[in-house]
Amino acid sequence: MNHSHERATALRADGSLRHLLTLDDLPRPMLERLLERAGHYSRPLGAPAARGTALEGVTVATLFTEPSTRTRVSFELAAQRLGAEVASVEVQLSSRLKGESMLDTVHTLESLHVDVFVLRDAQADVPDLVARNVAPHVSVLSGGAGSYSHPTQGLLDALTIQQHKGRVAGLSIAIVGDVRHSRVARSAWHAFGALGATDIRIVAPPALMPEPGEFAGCARSTRIEEGIGGCDVVMMLRIQKERMAQASIPGADQYFAEWGLTRARLRLARPDAIVMHPQPMNRGIEIDSAVADGPQSVIRDQVRNGVAVRMAVLEAVITGRAR
Amino acid sequence: MNHSHERATALRADGSLRHLLTLDDLPRPMLERLLERAGHYSRPLGAPAARGTALEGVTVATLFTEPSTRTRVSFELAAQRLGAEVASVEVQLSSRLKGESMLDTVHTLESLHVDVFVLRDAQADVPDLVARNVAPHVSVLSGGAGSYSHPTQGLLDALTIQQHKGRVAGLSIAIVGDVRHSRVARSAWHAFGALGATDIRIVAPPALMPEPGEFAGCARSTRIEEGIGGCDVVMMLRIQKERMAQASIPGADQYFAEWGLTRARLRLARPDAIVMHPQPMNRGIEIDSAVADGPQSVIRDQVRNGVAVRMAVLEAVITGRAR
Amino acid sequence: MNHSHERATALRADGSLRHLLTLDDLPRPMLERLLERAGHYSRPLGAPAARGTALEGVTVATLFTEPSTRTRVSFELAAQRLGAEVASVEVQLSSRLKGESMLDTVHTLESLHVDVFVLRDAQADVPDLVARNVAPHVSVLSGGAGSYSHPTQGLLDALTIQQHKGRVAGLSIAIVGDVRHSRVARSAWHAFGALGATDIRIVAPPALMPEPGEFAGCARSTRIEEGIGGCDVVMMLRIQKERMAQASIPGADQYFAEWGLTRARLRLARPDAIVMHPQPMNRGIEIDSAVADGPQSVIRDQVRNGVAVRMAVLEAVITGRAR
Repeated sequence: MNHSHERATALRADGSLRHLLTLDDLPRPMLERLLERAGHYSRPLGAPAARGTALEGVTVATLFTEPSTRTRVSFELAAQRLGAEVASVEVQLSSRLKGESMLDTVHTLESLHVDVFVLRDAQADVPDLVARNVAPHVSVLSGGAGSYSHPTQGLLDALTIQQHKGRVAGLSIAIVGDVRHSRVARSAWHAFGALGATDIRIVAPPALMPEPGEFAGCARSTRIEEGIGGCDVVMMLRIQKERMAQASIPGADQYFAEWGLTRARLRLARPDAIVMHPQPMNRGIEIDSAVADGPQSVIRDQVRNGVAVRMAVLEAVITGRAR
Repeated sequence: MNHSHERATALRADGSLRHLLTLDDLPRPMLERLLERAGHYSRPLGAPAARGTALEGVTVATLFTEPSTRTRVSFELAAQRLGAEVASVEVQLSSRLKGESMLDTVHTLESLHVDVFVLRDAQADVPDLVARNVAPHVSVLSGGAGSYSHPTQGLLDALTIQQHKGRVAGLSIAIVGDVRHSRVARSAWHAFGALGATDIRIVAPPALMPEPGEFAGCARSTRIEEGIGGCDVVMMLRIQKERMAQASIPGADQYFAEWGLTRARLRLARPDAIVMHPQPMNRGIEIDSAVADGPQSVIRDQVRNGVAVRMAVLEAVITGRAR
Repeated sequence: MNHSHERATALRADGSLRHLLTLDDLPRPMLERLLERAGHYSRPLGAPAARGTALEGVTVATLFTEPSTRTRVSFELAAQRLGAEVASVEVQLSSRLKGESMLDTVHTLESLHVDVFVLRDAQADVPDLVARNVAPHVSVLSGGAGSYSHPTQGLLDALTIQQHKGRVAGLSIAIVGDVRHSRVARSAWHAFGALGATDIRIVAPPALMPEPGEFAGCARSTRIEEGIGGCDVVMMLRIQKERMAQASIPGADQYFAEWGLTRARLRLARPDAIVMHPQPMNRGIEIDSAVADGPQSVIRDQVRNGVAVRMAVLEAVITGRAR
C-alpha cells in the first residue's frame, strides 16, 4: 500500500488517460480530445440519448460518501448507455481509519471485477489515495473531492462555454460567490486556463475569497457589480448557509440583496453573456429565478453536457487500457 | 414555468396517451385499450415474465418521496422488461419550496435524457405540477399522489375484476374501510365507473366517510355487514393506525371486531365474491389471514397484474410519442 | 402457509439444486459440482469478468434486512453477468410479526415474477421459512442467516483452499476467533467436512467457544499459539466489539495482544500456510495489516471467488428448474 505524497499519475506511459482526479495536470491536447468526444456524445434536449458499446463487459462502481443524486445518476447513465454494468454503492464511513476503510471497500470491489471507480468524498485526498493503490488495469474517476476538485464539472463547464461562444480563449469569465470552498471553481479555473482563457475574475465576499496564492493570475473583486462588468460568462456558485455567517452575512435575504444575481445586475455583463450554475441552486439566495430560467441561462445545457462528458471520460480510460 | 391551476392534459392532440395522473379524465376507449394491452402482458404465476422491446433506448426515472417498495419495483421491472434503462431516485425534500425543488430535480433528470418520470408524493398536486412543466417529449406517470389518485392501481383493480368476473359493468362492488383518505378508492371508483359499474358501495365508519359531494352515485353504509351484503367484489382498504383514533376506534383489536373482514362476514357477500386489497395488508386488523390467503382472495393477482398494467402504460406513452 | 418445523428441502426430486440455505444437508457430489462450476467462472484479477446467458429472462431479488455491501453486490453482479434482471430491495421490518411481513413482501415480489430470492437476515430461520412458502418454480438462496449459516461463504472458502492447496481433504485447518457467533465458521466447517477434512481446529477464547455439542470431531484450543501450530490454513473470523466484553477482554488493544494474527504468530503455522478472513476486517484487532496484506494472505481471492460461487449457484437452481 502506497501512502507516499506523490500524486497518482493521470496518464499511462503511452499517453492515454488512466485516472481523472483533477484537471491541473491534464495536458491541453488530452483536454481538447475529451471535449471533442464529449461534443460527439452531446445531444439536444428531446433527441434520443447518445449510446455506444465502448464499455461492454466493463463494470463501473460509484462510491459516494457524500450524497449527490445528479452527479451519481449522470455517471451511472453514462456508463449504462455505453454498455457497462453499474454497481451503486453508498458508503458510510466512520471517521477513524477512514482512508483504510475506503481502501478495503475498493479492494473488495476490485476483486468483484470492478474496472472503473467513481468516487465522491468530502476529503480532498481520498480519490488520489485510492488511485495510488488500485491494480494496474483499474481506473479511478473523481466525482468531486472536498473543496479541491470536480474535474468532470470543469470539463462540462468548458464544453458548455464552447458550444455557446465557440471558444474559451479570449473570453472574460467571472466566477462569483463562495470561491474559497468551491471545488467547482477550482476545476473550472484549471479547464479555462488550459484552454487559453486570460481574463478570469474571482468575485467573492472577503471571507469567501481563496487564499492569496491560489487562482494565480485572476483579477479579484469583492463587489458583484464590479466583478461581472462587461464579462462574457457569469458563473454562479452555490452558497452554503453556514458559510454566510462566516462571511458576516446574517441570512439568505441579506445575501441575495448583496450577492444575488438579478436581472438588473446581469445587465452589467455583456448583452450576450451566458449564466451558469453547477446546481443545485438556492433560488432567491445566490440567483433569482427570473435569471435561472431566463434566456441567458445555460444551466440546463450544463447538466445535459454532464452525461456527454462522463461518457467521453469513461470511453477514454477503457479504450486507452485496451490498446 | 406554468403554475396555473389548469390541469395537465392526459392525451396528445392525436389522441395518444401522454401522461397518466388520474383516471377521471381518461376516455373509456383509452382505458379499455390499456386494459387490453395489460391483459396481453399478464402472465400466470410461474410462467416466464412478459417481455418486449417498446422501450429500447428510453430512460425511465422513478422519483418517490414516499417509500413504496412494491409500486417502485413493479414500475422498474415493467420498464426493464420492455428494454428501458431505469434511474431510481429517492427524493428527500425539505418542506419549504417543495414544488420548486421537485421541479429542479425533474429538470435536471430531463437534461440527463430521462423520457418518462414515475412520481410518488404525499402531496396530491405534485405529479400534475411536474407534468405541466416538462418538455413536450417527456411523459409523467403517477405512482400515487396524496389521497387523490393512484391510477395504475385503479387499472390493475379493474383488470383483476375483468379476469375473474369477465366484466366490470353490472357488478356490485363494495369499497370498505378508510375511503376518506384513500387514493386507491378514488382511482378504483373512476375506473369502475368508466367501465359501466353502477352499484358501487362506499362502506366506512362515519369519520372515514368521504365528503358528501364525492363518489357521486355510490350507496353509502356505515356497517360492513350491511355494506357487503350480496356483493360480487369486496375491496378492502388499508387502515392507518392514526386514523383509528380519528374514527373513535380505540385500537387494532376493536377495529378488527367492528370492521375486519372475517370468513363469517364474507359469507354475507355472494358465494362467488372475490376479495381484493391494495397491500400492504394489516393482517388481523382490516382483514383476517384466513380470508387474505383464502380461496376467494385475488390479492396476489392484483400484484401480478400491476406489472402488466405498468408495461401497458409505459408502452402507450412511448409508442404514442413516436407516431 | 407452512409453519411446521420440517426444513425446506434443498434438492428437487430429480436431484437438482432448488434452494441453498445451509451446507449441512448438501450431498458431496452436489457440493463438488458447484465448486467445479465456480472454478469455471473464477477469473484472475485483471482478466475480464466471466459472463454467461444461463439467467436470461430470469429476475433475481436481493432482500437484505442486515446491510452487507460486499455480499449483496457480489450476488447482484453474479446475476447480471449471467443475464438476469435484478431488483434490490432493502427491507426494514418491525420486530412484531416479522416472519409474516417478510412472507408478504416475498409473495408480492413473487407475483412480480421474481424467480430467485437472495435473503439475508439476523434471524437464522427466516430464509428457511421463506423457502417453505414460495411457489414451486421459485428458489431461495441464503446470503447469511443469523449465526447459523452462510452457505456461499462456505463454498468460496472451500474453493479458495482448493485453488491454493489442490485439495481440502487431509489439511489442517484452524478456525480462529469468535466461533460461537459465527455463521461463517459453521458453513466452512460443513463444507470442509463434506470434502473430507479431518483436522479442523476450533480456536477461541472460552466465552466465544461454541456449545460442546457443536462442531463434532473438531479439536478445541483456547490459545491461538497452540491452535494454529503446524496448520495449513488459518481462517480468522471478525470480532464484534460487544463480544469482547462478554469474553472478559476489555478492549481492542487487549484482544489484539491475545488473539491478533501477527507475523510472529503466523510463523507457528506451516511455512506455506494460507491466511483467510471473510471480511470486513478489523485491522489491528483480529489481524495485523502486515498479515492481511502479506504474501500468505488469500483474502482477496476469497472475494474474487465469491462472484464465481454465486454464479455457479444461480446457474444451478435455474438450469435445474428448466430440466
